[in-house]
Parts: sequence; structure tokens; C-alpha cells
Amino acid sequence: METANKTIFPKGERAPAEYFTGTVWVKLLVPNDPIFNAQIGNVVFEPGARNNWHTHPGGQILIVTDGVGYYQKKGKSIQVIRKGDVVTIAPDIEHWHGASSDSEFTHIAVNTNTQKGIVVKLSAHLSRTIGSTTKDA
Amino acid sequence: METANKTIFPKGERAPAEYFTGTVWVKLLVPNDPIFNAQIGNVVFEPGARNNWHTHPGGQILIVTDGVGYYQKKGKSIQVIRKGDVVTIAPDIEHWHGASSDSEFTHIAVNTNTQKGIVVKLSAHLSRTIGSTTKDA
Repeated sequence: METANKTIFPKGERAPAEYFTGTVWVKLLVPNDPIFNAQIGNVVFEPGARNNWHTHPGGQILIVTDGVGYYQKKGKSIQVIRKGDVVTIAPDIEHWHGASSDSEFTHIAVNTNTQKGIVVKLSAHLSRTIGSTTKDA
Repeated sequence: METANKTIFPKGERAPAEYFTGTVWVKLLVPNDPIFNAQIGNVVFEPGARNNWHTHPGGQILIVTDGVGYYQKKGKSIQVIRKGDVVTIAPDIEHWHGASSDSEFTHIAVNTNTQKGIVVKLSAHLSRTIGSTTKDA
């Protein structure tokens, strides 16, 4: 399970606890700018870690490079996602993603159309309100 | 050198010989669409393989996931790029990229602002012309 590709990027900075459950590391690869209208980061979720429900005004694409994790779109069941999977998340779709309980999980997150905004983080309280079946935020 | 991360994605389809020197494999990860205005592919260059000079009307970001390769922007010297490196290529910049002679080289290519177009491939003849710094088109 500890494969070499975990070392493609350094783990970076610890993500703010306010919007995550568990320990998450973020390495910014491409800062947002008006030339590319994109922001790209590498995100490592330790086992059991996840983000709260949130949306992206311009959309987001997740490229899973290691481990096993989860993705859930509001109103749908949780999907298991693995190394090599790609998830496209349309603008304004409420969703969360994170690691499974027994695997570290790494993805590259490509935020698109960032001229429309990057992320709308919903509070843990609101996450519980939105989550109709997984009230674990 | 043969590390596990080469298997994040399947190699995909062989890239058209018209625009590449050597053997190159492309796996389309995200087709272009008007929601994300992005197109993403994984590209594997066998040792010594490269693309011809080309431009991207909306820009491109390369995320190197394995091996050692080269990137050259018109009028600048060749840069060595390695696993973990990220290259941002502004719109309309003439450039090429590919593997070093003794290493396979893999990158994820994120084409941005694709509403402006994805790629302008310059012919091998024109590439030679540009390569000698006497650009005529």
C-alpha cells in the first residue's frame, strides 16, 4: 500500500481544521491567476479524514493518484474512488470527498473557471443539515 | 526507476506520428466540454520521444508524475523537468516537451480556457524553422 507515487509531491501544509474532519495536507501546485483561470493543488487525506460539504462556483476535477477514498454528491450515495479514477464535479454541486477509514488517499484537485470563484465552504452545522444520510460532518 | 506510479493510468492510445517524434501514449482523462473549459490527459513519452513545437490558445499546465524530461519555450534554453515538477505555459507560447534520452517521462497535461481552443500543432517543417529561431508563421 505504501507505493512510491506518494512522493510525487511533498505533503505541504496542514489544511485548516475548520473545514475538514481529520488530518489533511495540501500542497498548492498552481496558484489561481487570470491567465489560466485554474487553481491546482495536491491533497493528502490521512485515513478517515474528509472535507465538509462544499461547492465550487467554477467546477472541480479530482484526479486520484493514490489510495482509496470516497466521493459523495448531495442526494446520491457515497462512491468509492481509487487511484486512477477521475471525478468531474459541476459548478455549484454540493459534495464532499475524503479517505476511507483504512487507507490514506491522495488526489490532485483542479479547480476550473476560477474567475467565477474557487470554493464555497459550508459550515459543519450546514453540512449536517445538507447531509441527509451521512450526518458525520 | 520503474516505480509504481507509472500505473496510475493505463497508457491509452498511441499519439499520432505526425506531431510527435518517437513513441508517445495518450490517455484522455477529461474530454473538453463547455462546463469546465478544460481538457485533461495523461501522456507517456518513451525515452527520446517528444512533441513538435506547438501552442495552446488557452494555455496549458504540465504536472510531471514520473521520469525525467525536457521542456523548451521558444527563445529559451531547454529545461530539465522531473517527477513532481509543474510547468505553466501561457497562451500562444511556442514550446515543446518530451522525454530525456534515457528515461520514460510521464505528465498530466491540463489544457485550460479551452473555449479559446486547445492546441495549434506546428508542422515538423515549421518546427525546424522555429527551432532555428527563424520563425516564419
